[in-house]
Amino acid sequence: MLFPPLYKPPFPPFLPSHTRPSIPSPCFALKSPSFSPMATVSPTPLLKDELDIVIPTIRNLDFLEMWRPFFQPYHLIIVQDGDPTKTIKVPEGFDYELYNRNDINRILGPKASCISFKDSACRCFGYMVSKKKYIYTIDDDCFVAKDPSGKDINALEQHIQNLLSPSTPFFFNTLYDPYRSGADFVRGYPFSLREGVPTAVSHGLWLNIPDYDAPTQLVKPLERNTRYVDAIMTIPKGTLFPMCGMNLAFNRELIGPAMYFGLMGDGQPIGRYDDMWAGWCTKVICDHLGWGVKTGLPYIWHSKASNPFVNLKKEYKGIYWQEELIPFFQSVALPKDCTTVQKCYIEISKQVKAKLGKVDDYFNKLADAMVTWIEAWDELNPSGDISAKIPNGASK
Amino acid sequence: MLFPPLYKPPFPPFLPSHTRPSIPSPCFALKSPSFSPMATVSPTPLLKDELDIVIPTIRNLDFLEMWRPFFQPYHLIIVQDGDPTKTIKVPEGFDYELYNRNDINRILGPKASCISFKDSACRCFGYMVSKKKYIYTIDDDCFVAKDPSGKDINALEQHIQNLLSPSTPFFFNTLYDPYRSGADFVRGYPFSLREGVPTAVSHGLWLNIPDYDAPTQLVKPLERNTRYVDAIMTIPKGTLFPMCGMNLAFNRELIGPAMYFGLMGDGQPIGRYDDMWAGWCTKVICDHLGWGVKTGLPYIWHSKASNPFVNLKKEYKGIYWQEELIPFFQSVALPKDCTTVQKCYIEISKQVKAKLGKVDDYFNKLADAMVTWIEAWDELNPSGDISAKIPNGASK
Repeated sequence: MLFPPLYKPPFPPFLPSHTRPSIPSPCFALKSPSFSPMATVSPTPLLKDELDIVIPTIRNLDFLEMWRPFFQPYHLIIVQDGDPTKTIKVPEGFDYELYNRNDINRILGPKASCISFKDSACRCFGYMVSKKKYIYTIDDDCFVAKDPSGKDINALEQHIQNLLSPSTPFFFNTLYDPYRSGADFVRGYPFSLREGVPTAVSHGLWLNIPDYDAPTQLVKPLERNTRYVDAIMTIPKGTLFPMCGMNLAFNRELIGPAMYFGLMGDGQPIGRYDDMWAGWCTKVICDHLGWGVKTGLPYIWHSKASNPFVNLKKEYKGIYWQEELIPFFQSVALPKDCTTVQKCYIEISKQVKAKLGKVDDYFNKLADAMVTWIEAWDELNPSGDISAKIPNGASK
Repeated sequence: MLFPPLYKPPFPPFLPSHTRPSIPSPCFALKSPSFSPMATVSPTPLLKDELDIVIPTIRNLDFLEMWRPFFQPYHLIIVQDGDPTKTIKVPEGFDYELYNRNDINRILGPKASCISFKDSACRCFGYMVSKKKYIYTIDDDCFVAKDPSGKDINALEQHIQNLLSPSTPFFFNTLYDPYRSGADFVRGYPFSLREGVPTAVSHGLWLNIPDYDAPTQLVKPLERNTRYVDAIMTIPKGTLFPMCGMNLAFNRELIGPAMYFGLMGDGQPIGRYDDMWAGWCTKVICDHLGWGVKTGLPYIWHSKASNPFVNLKKEYKGIYWQEELIPFFQSVALPKDCTTVQKCYIEISKQVKAKLGKVDDYFNKLADAMVTWIEAWDELNPSGDISAKIPNGASK
């Protein structure tokens, strides 16, 4: 014993772990170790009435069969892309509302111009009409992945855990997410930062087909992501990242108005930068408002590589433009009076117009659409009364 | 075919992967899949004549037996901590030089005051007397870890791969190190940043006993790190991290003079912040000079938790002080004319004196020691003539 028995450690406010926000227990109590998609699950999934799953699609949603044990308790918002006369089949037993282009036009009127057409960017309409605190969005070519032990990964559950535990954007923890079981803050991590900050975004990854751009797809057509990295981490403050919309969750109440997926697809000079745009705006605003963005687990199984030639056509302007966009977003400074996401977003739209308008006239249009998006958001989400809006989509 | 056969992609300078610096092939060609420490290895380990292994110790180096297949081809620099009359036994067959306190005093004269006594911080003397381009340093309670397949991890090989492949500090890659086999830059990663920058530091992790501070050790005495995270990543520019000296490699030619482990141990009011101090200084200088710091793989097996009560005694001032140190290092601004590590380091020492001297007089002493360290470094490493210095340690 090196200290007298009654020695009191000199760190009364510094009790790690005990004072931390606890991480929720798993949504589903798995009944059997050899879990299959049809296994019985506990009837009380986490955040059941506080989370919507948003899916943009142009086809029947057969992929939901595989997700049934995980998604069925939740409400789905399906945003139908392209031809509104086409009928999208949704497997039996799911609770959903579905919006096609006609619905979007009817609900938003002239403001519908800010929602992309013939592009999965239209998914952000679903964020706008949701009444919930949290959103999970997933592409319809994403299937359930398996962890290294062969167990099906409940991606939604992991996203919820990510969103409900804090982030640590101000200092890097070398053992990754300190709030995970079996991990903590390492020696040298300031105690004043160990409470973390609210997590606004949880960015999940993809096994099998990695999210590469067209040039990389062309150069490495056979590359598959087989590396399961068992980590979640906070992307540090001041660092931008490429946010992919394929497997993404966020706290809509915190950051929803920044999750605008821009003008892409039909009639626009660019595609496949919708989620990137949203990610850059979101990260800058999270950094300004003191919220966290996590990336890493959960993985989904991305089944199908999109056509690299089509992608190249959509991307090639973006590939040039992003060389201007990254320095732009790295230098965006938001004034102190930008105290809400909306104010931040409008401020960014002004800076887009002032600084990127000269790169291409597209950015003037985009800046206007950003303002329209916020107007539409506020119309459907009158402040303090989220439940009052009645979007009137085609419900099941 | 969506484009005419002769369509030329609009990105001539943007060929990913091909133009990348190639990652060296493994140092050792393992002869058998059931590899044991005594397995035969290829006779040409990577960087054999360009890397020194620095080990601070107070005891016989039996732990080297386990590392023999990986370390034996390299030169060791052993820095004996504490009583110089004690004899440290080194297993047969290793090529080493050993320095005790008498050697340090003889070689550095009055400047020996900058080298800590009775603290593993003395290891940085080994960095100073090395003649090599790269350093790997490891604690003597670190053993060979196994990867999830059960194979022994050649930590040194992984560090060398980390150091020889570039870093990406300016933008976050969600699939981690883009230079690893099976990985690349994801969609949305600017092409102009894909060549990366030189890697100055490779920070490895620890399975079994995690590197926790005393309060966390006390609260979680039984916590073990069992999570093998198969990732290497660049710590973004502008982000500080807690650098642990247990399993660390660096490019001495690039960043060596910043790897000063401070004044710790005997006669000092603080311990266990030696590597932290070096990490903060190093990161700020790497950010300024445009070099990268990687963390993640490789893991070593950390066998023995140090006594939390002893640690608390060493750490408690540091735990308070780091709350001032982190904001200090976050706001250090190095002027443009700081074009060498030495100039950066002297500039930081001035700012330490100016801004941290009022926190405690210790920082005035430390600032002076930082200057002494650089003087000693330059004396032993006359510029452009690394091989000219003759440190005269006790050689095998």
